[in-house]
Amino acid sequence: MERLSGEKEQSVEAFGWAARDSSGHLSPFVFSRRKTGEEEVRVKVLYCGICHSDLHCLKNEWHSSTYPLVPGHEIVGEVSEIGSKVSKFNLGDKVGVGCIIDSCRTCQSCREDQENYCTKAVATYNGVHHDGTINYGGYSDHIVVDERYAVKIPHTLPLASAAPLLCAGISMYSPMKYFGLAGPDKHIGIVGLGGLGHIGVRFAKAFGTKVTVISSTTGKSKDALETLGADGFLVSTDEDQMKAATGTMDGIIDTVSASHSISPLIGLLKSNGKLVLLGATEKPFDISAFSLILGRKSIAGSGIGGMKETQEMIDFAAEHGIKAEIEIISMDYVNTAIDRLAKGDVRYRFVIDIANTLAATRS
Amino acid sequence: MERLSGEKEQSVEAFGWAARDSSGHLSPFVFSRRKTGEEEVRVKVLYCGICHSDLHCLKNEWHSSTYPLVPGHEIVGEVSEIGSKVSKFNLGDKVGVGCIIDSCRTCQSCREDQENYCTKAVATYNGVHHDGTINYGGYSDHIVVDERYAVKIPHTLPLASAAPLLCAGISMYSPMKYFGLAGPDKHIGIVGLGGLGHIGVRFAKAFGTKVTVISSTTGKSKDALETLGADGFLVSTDEDQMKAATGTMDGIIDTVSASHSISPLIGLLKSNGKLVLLGATEKPFDISAFSLILGRKSIAGSGIGGMKETQEMIDFAAEHGIKAEIEIISMDYVNTAIDRLAKGDVRYRFVIDIANTLAATRS
Repeated sequence: MERLSGEKEQSVEAFGWAARDSSGHLSPFVFSRRKTGEEEVRVKVLYCGICHSDLHCLKNEWHSSTYPLVPGHEIVGEVSEIGSKVSKFNLGDKVGVGCIIDSCRTCQSCREDQENYCTKAVATYNGVHHDGTINYGGYSDHIVVDERYAVKIPHTLPLASAAPLLCAGISMYSPMKYFGLAGPDKHIGIVGLGGLGHIGVRFAKAFGTKVTVISSTTGKSKDALETLGADGFLVSTDEDQMKAATGTMDGIIDTVSASHSISPLIGLLKSNGKLVLLGATEKPFDISAFSLILGRKSIAGSGIGGMKETQEMIDFAAEHGIKAEIEIISMDYVNTAIDRLAKGDVRYRFVIDIANTLAATRS
Repeated sequence: MERLSGEKEQSVEAFGWAARDSSGHLSPFVFSRRKTGEEEVRVKVLYCGICHSDLHCLKNEWHSSTYPLVPGHEIVGEVSEIGSKVSKFNLGDKVGVGCIIDSCRTCQSCREDQENYCTKAVATYNGVHHDGTINYGGYSDHIVVDERYAVKIPHTLPLASAAPLLCAGISMYSPMKYFGLAGPDKHIGIVGLGGLGHIGVRFAKAFGTKVTVISSTTGKSKDALETLGADGFLVSTDEDQMKAATGTMDGIIDTVSASHSISPLIGLLKSNGKLVLLGATEKPFDISAFSLILGRKSIAGSGIGGMKETQEMIDFAAEHGIKAEIEIISMDYVNTAIDRLAKGDVRYRFVIDIANTLAATRS
């Protein structure tokens, strides 16, 4: 077991699992977290979801990974220490930490509660803290975060299945609200029924929005229609089905990050319809301007949400009983889970039971 | 001089200039217009603008041209006959006819005054009338149109320079309004200073919007800044200028229909910024999803506007003294004008003086 050099005085020892190189293989890792600042809380991690972007980062597929790398940005935990100026939280509060833990706080995006679009937003892991150190994520026993970047988890929300809301949940909720797709007179398509898509169906239903799952195969049709309550299931490789659905949707949220053609999706939109891309596909898309001009259609991107909206989403989820479908795993199963995730073998999100299984992996 | 076969009884003889084939060469043409229907007006054409799409259609570049083809959809004229159920217009009224002269009138787009996005909208020329005949445009002595698809031209608006508003004007006005770009707290870019772009600058200034013209060369910088009153001029091929303008614009309206890269334009947008494409470029665009996700940016298309909005635009133009910069030509100059337009040699719109020069070309 290694120990990170350069620890600072008054820092607190932390323990988690890290990848040491682009093999992405995770193993136990002792490091240190800074002292809790005046406006910060220390959070004992209880659960952490495994997001598909963890996989990309572990393997340095976005060419920005710094090792050792402790992933994890779907964190639910309990406040174990509070700074002297903290006003939002008390000891013992259940809180969530998502994809970002800092931003500039002064730019237009920050002023408008869209810290997620601040160009200086700091990622929860693999991001650079203002003291120059690299952040470690939630595959660890605790984390220190400014109170602005944590949200309260209401008592009524089961903690483990709330974890994926911090990334997958807000990623779906935010564009539905922003692009005017949340409401009983709307019909949306959700491309891809994975970690994001399945939560999206639940939010859509809670909004009263008609929702059709769009998938390249029929494999998840029963899940979509019966388990999740989608109103329709559309197989994108079936030309007849696609033709019949032409011009029927107000919006489409595309969660797929593997390269795929989006032109057929444009055809599904009504006039003024919006295709919202959440997946940062490697290859650029080909778009015909004409297909957008006919019907004033848009293609947009969306990435998570601001902290105010994340709290709103969590409160909405609690109110409507929305939770992720999860498979709870122990810490020592994480490498297997990552392999299974790479193959799409999970319905629909792995969540690591940090509180009950991490400590036992420390030898 | 030829005469179209299949004329109907009670039809009215009309005279204009038509192309007979994809050479696009225009020459005198006698044809017939239908009798004025109950809800229709007959309009004596006074002026007709030459739109860049006339050029595409004349040469069958969109592979949908039917010959003989009489172009012209920037029409200003005078009501010379009214149907028994016409309520909007009186004899002698000055009216405008733009790109469409019919639509289904029952679909959601039509019900929401967005006839331009009706999938059954009928183009003013080269479109198919419900009786199966092909429509002829405004390079002609008169036109018959349902009153819904004509707008009133206020007395204060000079008629010749109002003609280009019917296509170029509404093409710029509509997206500025719809995409929330019209207002003193907004900064927009307009790509291309041609027939559309130059009117766009004037609308933007009337809205109080800060406007920067984006062009690949410096050639029109003086026109943009001095004649039209743009706030800035950005040379898209100048990397330093482009870098300095990163993240400064709420929206960009791209009027260029020649193929060009739009990725650099995305970089100019602020968070939530919108790039609106008006030009139906032949080649598809390449877009990186990531460039849209960072900052929740959109790429949209927009095409002219609905009839209600076209009237609103004309009234706004009259109120604010907005007019196109035009070069008035005689009918027999039209082929030369088309050649010059193809070379970009016009500042900024040719308008044919139909009333005073068409008749003389009839031998």
